[in-house]
Amino acid sequence: MNFASDNAEGWAPEILEALAAANEGAMASYGDDNLTAEVTKVFSKLFERDVAVFLVPTGTAANGLAFGALAPRYGAIFVHEASHVQMDECAAPEFFTGGAKLIPLAGDDGKIAPETFERSLSYIHDGFVHHAPPKILSLTQASECGTVYSVDEIAALSGLAKARHLAVHMDGARFANALVHLGCSPAEATWKAGVDVLSFGATKNGCIAAEALVFFDPGQVGDVEFLRKRAGHLFSKHRFLSAQMLAYLKDDLWLRLATHANTCAQALGNGLASTAGATLWYAVEANEVFVSLDEGAIERLKAAGAAFHPWVVPGDPANGRILRFVTSFRTDMADVAEAIRVAAAPSF
Amino acid sequence: MNFASDNAEGWAPEILEALAAANEGAMASYGDDNLTAEVTKVFSKLFERDVAVFLVPTGTAANGLAFGALAPRYGAIFVHEASHVQMDECAAPEFFTGGAKLIPLAGDDGKIAPETFERSLSYIHDGFVHHAPPKILSLTQASECGTVYSVDEIAALSGLAKARHLAVHMDGARFANALVHLGCSPAEATWKAGVDVLSFGATKNGCIAAEALVFFDPGQVGDVEFLRKRAGHLFSKHRFLSAQMLAYLKDDLWLRLATHANTCAQALGNGLASTAGATLWYAVEANEVFVSLDEGAIERLKAAGAAFHPWVVPGDPANGRILRFVTSFRTDMADVAEAIRVAAAPSF
Amino acid sequence: MNFASDNAEGWAPEILEALAAANEGAMASYGDDNLTAEVTKVFSKLFERDVAVFLVPTGTAANGLAFGALAPRYGAIFVHEASHVQMDECAAPEFFTGGAKLIPLAGDDGKIAPETFERSLSYIHDGFVHHAPPKILSLTQASECGTVYSVDEIAALSGLAKARHLAVHMDGARFANALVHLGCSPAEATWKAGVDVLSFGATKNGCIAAEALVFFDPGQVGDVEFLRKRAGHLFSKHRFLSAQMLAYLKDDLWLRLATHANTCAQALGNGLASTAGATLWYAVEANEVFVSLDEGAIERLKAAGAAFHPWVVPGDPANGRILRFVTSFRTDMADVAEAIRVAAAPSF
Amino acid sequence: MNFASDNAEGWAPEILEALAAANEGAMASYGDDNLTAEVTKVFSKLFERDVAVFLVPTGTAANGLAFGALAPRYGAIFVHEASHVQMDECAAPEFFTGGAKLIPLAGDDGKIAPETFERSLSYIHDGFVHHAPPKILSLTQASECGTVYSVDEIAALSGLAKARHLAVHMDGARFANALVHLGCSPAEATWKAGVDVLSFGATKNGCIAAEALVFFDPGQVGDVEFLRKRAGHLFSKHRFLSAQMLAYLKDDLWLRLATHANTCAQALGNGLASTAGATLWYAVEANEVFVSLDEGAIERLKAAGAAFHPWVVPGDPANGRILRFVTSFRTDMADVAEAIRVAAAPSF
Repeated sequence: MNFASDNAEGWAPEILEALAAANEGAMASYGDDNLTAEVTKVFSKLFERDVAVFLVPTGTAANGLAFGALAPRYGAIFVHEASHVQMDECAAPEFFTGGAKLIPLAGDDGKIAPETFERSLSYIHDGFVHHAPPKILSLTQASECGTVYSVDEIAALSGLAKARHLAVHMDGARFANALVHLGCSPAEATWKAGVDVLSFGATKNGCIAAEALVFFDPGQVGDVEFLRKRAGHLFSKHRFLSAQMLAYLKDDLWLRLATHANTCAQALGNGLASTAGATLWYAVEANEVFVSLDEGAIERLKAAGAAFHPWVVPGDPANGRILRFVTSFRTDMADVAEAIRVAAAPSF
Repeated sequence: MNFASDNAEGWAPEILEALAAANEGAMASYGDDNLTAEVTKVFSKLFERDVAVFLVPTGTAANGLAFGALAPRYGAIFVHEASHVQMDECAAPEFFTGGAKLIPLAGDDGKIAPETFERSLSYIHDGFVHHAPPKILSLTQASECGTVYSVDEIAALSGLAKARHLAVHMDGARFANALVHLGCSPAEATWKAGVDVLSFGATKNGCIAAEALVFFDPGQVGDVEFLRKRAGHLFSKHRFLSAQMLAYLKDDLWLRLATHANTCAQALGNGLASTAGATLWYAVEANEVFVSLDEGAIERLKAAGAAFHPWVVPGDPANGRILRFVTSFRTDMADVAEAIRVAAAPSF
Repeated sequence: MNFASDNAEGWAPEILEALAAANEGAMASYGDDNLTAEVTKVFSKLFERDVAVFLVPTGTAANGLAFGALAPRYGAIFVHEASHVQMDECAAPEFFTGGAKLIPLAGDDGKIAPETFERSLSYIHDGFVHHAPPKILSLTQASECGTVYSVDEIAALSGLAKARHLAVHMDGARFANALVHLGCSPAEATWKAGVDVLSFGATKNGCIAAEALVFFDPGQVGDVEFLRKRAGHLFSKHRFLSAQMLAYLKDDLWLRLATHANTCAQALGNGLASTAGATLWYAVEANEVFVSLDEGAIERLKAAGAAFHPWVVPGDPANGRILRFVTSFRTDMADVAEAIRVAAAPSF
Repeated sequence: MNFASDNAEGWAPEILEALAAANEGAMASYGDDNLTAEVTKVFSKLFERDVAVFLVPTGTAANGLAFGALAPRYGAIFVHEASHVQMDECAAPEFFTGGAKLIPLAGDDGKIAPETFERSLSYIHDGFVHHAPPKILSLTQASECGTVYSVDEIAALSGLAKARHLAVHMDGARFANALVHLGCSPAEATWKAGVDVLSFGATKNGCIAAEALVFFDPGQVGDVEFLRKRAGHLFSKHRFLSAQMLAYLKDDLWLRLATHANTCAQALGNGLASTAGATLWYAVEANEVFVSLDEGAIERLKAAGAAFHPWVVPGDPANGRILRFVTSFRTDMADVAEAIRVAAAPSF
């Protein structure tokens, strides 16, 4: 009964098979191979426009490179105060940008509200040399609270950003889970709502180590190829990344895996929330459940070997009482049922 | 009637005289001269303990070097959301540290409240590689709102910082003004209350360009000498900085100048606050007055040639109505009286 | 007939099998798993002392993190002018260190001569704030010219480094190939000769993407864990890296693979060098052959589909005439024979 | 008899007088004052074209900002191996650029030879992501050996740079001394010969602390204003810098001061070189003399209180025997005569 993290799981069989298939013969290194060219084609089709794609092994790298490409060294980047880029990347954004300033914004449910963003922007004068100039708005989709920005919410925030000439970045470490919830097209969930660049996560949802940095306007790519190389994120045997990504996108594997994870989370959230003394803190819209449970339920779950973590969401008054349960592409629904059963009642 | 900024004034005559006197003969360059050695002695006496002192020309440099010496490249530095280091230095702290993360905290009157700091600290686990580790608490004294932390307030915040092994930095760009308000000794206002390193400002209060970075424990200096050099802040004709600082500290010149500025601000604040429709937003404890005025008063002041600025204090709901008036070491009290007179009533 | 690069090949079957085996069940993420603990044990046994090991996906990352851990932001790092860290990493060392200075040294055969290093060191005064202080000597083993430092050469250079308190780094992207040539133990080739930290390469020699940063004195590790995380090089599904490395080291697979590559290179070097008009520029001591060939031979090889590159070795007067041929863990010896045959004579 | 450094002297009386005059009244801070506007006009007239000027207090800051404005974070900057930017700025260029790579080039007499530059350029492929792309050629004028590039030499080097789209920077810490030697116009010595940006030194030649970063094409300025601010080099009382620079340029003061220094150096060089056993290592073209002297002469000079330093010029075989004597804007010619007399013969 592992609900500790989607990172705690391995990889989908299709991914491993793709690696075996990609091992044939010599290929140009550093991304000059046919598989990598194919990746760009597949993403362009998926997003219904010509995109530029850069593959890296981790989400922290994808986010950092996006910021490095879109902000000068002293730019301001607006983020949620509980977001991964702010709290869980050990100041990687500051490193990849060469010292940009992250502006953390409060916001319910892990999401930035337009008025909060607008107020924060109002403190900064464009062209005023004392102020770090606003350059990027970064949205986490799904959010750190397992919630999902609606397309309208994204569009409203993007509109404010564009009015001040900021680029919009989406940290989509759990983009697949968010998209399944939204039920719209990838294009509608991103560039049609004003997103400029997407960290398209695949690792948490069944890959081994693969994330795609997708620029919807290739003209915004800037020098990200150089930035990737000097950060040590240009793989020599680049086929490893490309093969994973092709398999992940093939025949909607990515959506099937995410649908499974979301369904498990939905069931787990409903089940746990119905136990005595439980409180569900955020709507379960992706593959994470944030809940507080009766002390006895916690003890029973631990005794039964369930893995989950107490959780802190910066800014949330519920801190100290929140538990996080994460489901994944290979969560066993029987485990979900068992966890609910154990939490619900002492076994007699 | 200049109330635009203390930076808009020139320098005290004693400072210029000191430069003339320091021009005699050859001296070792880069700070290996006798005047610079004397500076350390004078500061050690002033602060009642052996201190290490580094002179630089700007407050931004002093703050940046303090941070660079005390935090690793990925460390977290807690600051007020309206502070100079956060808002007015174009991401200099991020530059000088090589990418540290500033954590802006809300707080009334430009000051950080202990519970806010404590809560923010609670979100970060020591030694957890995903979190930028907490390393510095930076307090601005006087604050960006012209208010002054009491000694007890400093001690309370320092206590929380020390319990988590953070260093405490004080941005004292207006330290002289704050000290005059506190009426205690320099030692009591700093290291006796837990401050580790002080950006001791002198430029705003009568010098040309001179700030002292004072480490109360020379063991914390680290490699700041190298950091200063590579930031281009080690002056070849270092006597220029030392001569200013010696003249500034001699015979309490610095305290006399700050007392004058504070007295002017007090009078100006009282006077303006008593005009019809005026609201004083913060207690006048240093040399700044934040006030809103009747529209007619504003027009009359402008017509009379008074210089002052509308002001934005990040996080303050009063934004949009705040005006800032700054007095200085050479403000003419007659200008203060005239400004009050003009603001108070139409001239018939 | 691929002799373009060892990076152009895929991965050894044992590595893929290890990934399949490592896919079972949930494991703690970010390296807190049992496989990763095992990696440290295996390396400690291999090097005959307790070592600290950090796995990353690329050699550029390993080198950069080593430099970041061992040099301050303004330190000087001595490297060969033709080395990978100087020429082929897009200023990654400068990035990972936050701005350290690389001092490139000339040297025959891709190797630094002790007297060259000593002379360069003599230009810098310790503690002199104007000079970037010497902190690291980095040796590339095997070198960029396919040559190998002898143990005595390493010891001589390390001795000079230690006398000035520099750490010694070895870029062992092709360490396996070098060790096979030396015929000594891993310990003798490294820490017993004064090496402090090793970038132990595995990717070029049969892994997918895996390099180990090995600190022979765990006390020198410093904050490399934080540096790795903020560079985006801490893998969430860390088992991927560990499983590769365990398989690579198991039953001397790494040495068998390197022996094969070296044997192929030896044969290829001998064969090509014996063709009419050929010149072998460097001793073939690892898996690379640097040779110039008769124009006709070049044409025939290309026509036969052989892949190889014209090469530039910074500082070498032979530039413009050098061709590089690389063999790998899965070079087919029949291809070697065929290449020699084709180069040697027109087919009638 | 101070020949230790031009930095060891104070400031010219005209400079101090200018500071006194500039102290009147309130002025806009941070460079929005009339004196600063005047500086740009004066420089534009001096250089016979519209230039953009940024004043800073040190040469290290001027050089660093020039590099930061003209090179991306991973760019390659070509410099002489003995240059100030390479040897004497504690890796400041790497800091200001956020990690660019300096490529040190050997060269006689402190000067880069075109063929050396060309060869080094040939090792780097444009657009090849593994190579730090060539972005700046930096020439030191006068050089670290007290020699001066001729206009033709500058033009030849600039031509090579431009052919590869590099910008040309001139570190003119001793530009006045060089120009006096060349006898041409400032325009001929700079942009007419292909220089894009000049660090125009004034501190060594009579100012207190003032250097001008001059962009001959204002379109190349980029974001240097932001870079200057975040490096702590934007002075609040900016009139201090502007007043110095205006006085320095007024009525050719700068040329008169440099002419004096050069004349003293010429006399000193001739005199010392004529003493028994002396060797003059470089032509005396600016205000520095590099000479080796008979041991007795050295002892006698020291006994007479003369200040000078043994010197190391990276790359020069004469190291260990070189002494450096520097003259300045206020060297007393009587001291020159006395030094020569003392060096020449024992006093009987």
